[in-house]
Amino acid sequence: MTGAAPSAPAAFVHHVRVLYADTDTGGVVYHANYLRFLEAARAELFRDRGLAYARIEARGLVFPVVEAALRYRRPARYDDLLEVRLVVKVVGGASFAIAHEIALPDGEVACTGVVRFACISRETGRPVPLPDDVRGLLQGA
Amino acid sequence: MTGAAPSAPAAFVHHVRVLYADTDTGGVVYHANYLRFLEAARAELFRDRGLAYARIEARGLVFPVVEAALRYRRPARYDDLLEVRLVVKVVGGASFAIAHEIALPDGEVACTGVVRFACISRETGRPVPLPDDVRGLLQGA
Amino acid sequence: MTGAAPSAPAAFVHHVRVLYADTDTGGVVYHANYLRFLEAARAELFRDRGLAYARIEARGLVFPVVEAALRYRRPARYDDLLEVRLVVKVVGGASFAIAHEIALPDGEVACTGVVRFACISRETGRPVPLPDDVRGLLQGA
Amino acid sequence: MTGAAPSAPAAFVHHVRVLYADTDTGGVVYHANYLRFLEAARAELFRDRGLAYARIEARGLVFPVVEAALRYRRPARYDDLLEVRLVVKVVGGASFAIAHEIALPDGEVACTGVVRFACISRETGRPVPLPDDVRGLLQGA
Repeated sequence: MTGAAPSAPAAFVHHVRVLYADTDTGGVVYHANYLRFLEAARAELFRDRGLAYARIEARGLVFPVVEAALRYRRPARYDDLLEVRLVVKVVGGASFAIAHEIALPDGEVACTGVVRFACISRETGRPVPLPDDVRGLLQGA
Repeated sequence: MTGAAPSAPAAFVHHVRVLYADTDTGGVVYHANYLRFLEAARAELFRDRGLAYARIEARGLVFPVVEAALRYRRPARYDDLLEVRLVVKVVGGASFAIAHEIALPDGEVACTGVVRFACISRETGRPVPLPDDVRGLLQGA
Repeated sequence: MTGAAPSAPAAFVHHVRVLYADTDTGGVVYHANYLRFLEAARAELFRDRGLAYARIEARGLVFPVVEAALRYRRPARYDDLLEVRLVVKVVGGASFAIAHEIALPDGEVACTGVVRFACISRETGRPVPLPDDVRGLLQGA
Repeated sequence: MTGAAPSAPAAFVHHVRVLYADTDTGGVVYHANYLRFLEAARAELFRDRGLAYARIEARGLVFPVVEAALRYRRPARYDDLLEVRLVVKVVGGASFAIAHEIALPDGEVACTGVVRFACISRETGRPVPLPDDVRGLLQGA
């Protein structure tokens, strides 16, 4: 991932509270569950910018995850209020990526990475160009 | 739940290995995840009796959970090989229930209970009578 | 469950947004995940009344789920903002129960039920009486 | 990931059945849940080579995930019997990585990637060299 770090001023910020359901017997958040936190933050990013993902789907588009890269730096624990910071990067005509940084209550970073999405027509299952309004929304990041 | 206990000879048995993903920071299986173990066992019960649930769905029927009652007796832990015992009870024309008992490796019982299902037409969303072959399959318990 | 319905004025209310992670291929919330929504609401109930569950644990107590009963009435779907209503009932010296009602955006009820908890000493693993302040907090419901 | 592909003869193979619990409202496996499938396969790899992960933990070591990279190629669906193929690569004194390939019933590949682990002392929380027997076990891949 190049360009602006997710902690740059342009990052979209969403908070997530860690539940018992998110943790494991090691006393920390189970590694797969950070992807859930990212989904929660992403949904609010879209909603915040005026186009809830449910409405994008209603237009016949889906944005499946095609790639995910995560680096786990420090463990998050039960009841932590995590700060999820997202920076969107349009990376092509029918694809975009969202870099993330998930911070612990003490400011340390628990997890960084990037998730890439395709823009797919639900009807054909084939990639289609990002509609202009979605592209604009994403570039607003 | 009345009638034969799930540990009676007629019980269908399926084993499930506890993953980190199933546990929580309390060092035990998170309570919601027993419902997952039950789903895994139920799928194998249907398959074992000759009609995988995916094939039932292909016939336009779905069996949503309409009621679940669980009693947690002892905690299961990471890497435990759990024995899930199921006993099916047809409870009406368009409904059935499956009683369960989930045993720990030492033989103690971790969780008991019963889950009730409706037989629903996917097309109409309305209850429909259990087809004769499904009823027979269930009564084979 | 007897006494006041969870929708009575005394209910504690918490909202939960349904994620893709909560849904299943049937197009609805997977039945086990309502237990997660209940945990999220419960944590906020404790916090709201001045004693976060993490602080209760720090005092050497744990409140494991010992019984759960759920009735599924209507399906919740992706992006629904669910209203979780909780009513606490102290049911004994070392035990309490929380009745719930989870409402869909249209006001219909998706799920009702009750979850019962034990008050356990983490050190001994044995039931201990609910401390007076926790009892008071719970009875504030 | 360099070197032998996960489908090379040395790969460890484990099968996982997709449950409703693993899927989402898009009709496919939710992307985070592939990490669960990998955990299940990894546990069996360790057990198969004579040293269950639970026994490694009993020796005071933990192997937390420090990095995960996943590429999603084709969707897996309910009831698919997935073939998880793992190839271990020791990548340093206190670290190792496991490349994976998850195949659909038709032989197409659903997901590829690599997960990296640290070898940590539970007592100190610091990296420690992989014990010789664990190193040998991993290199047996």
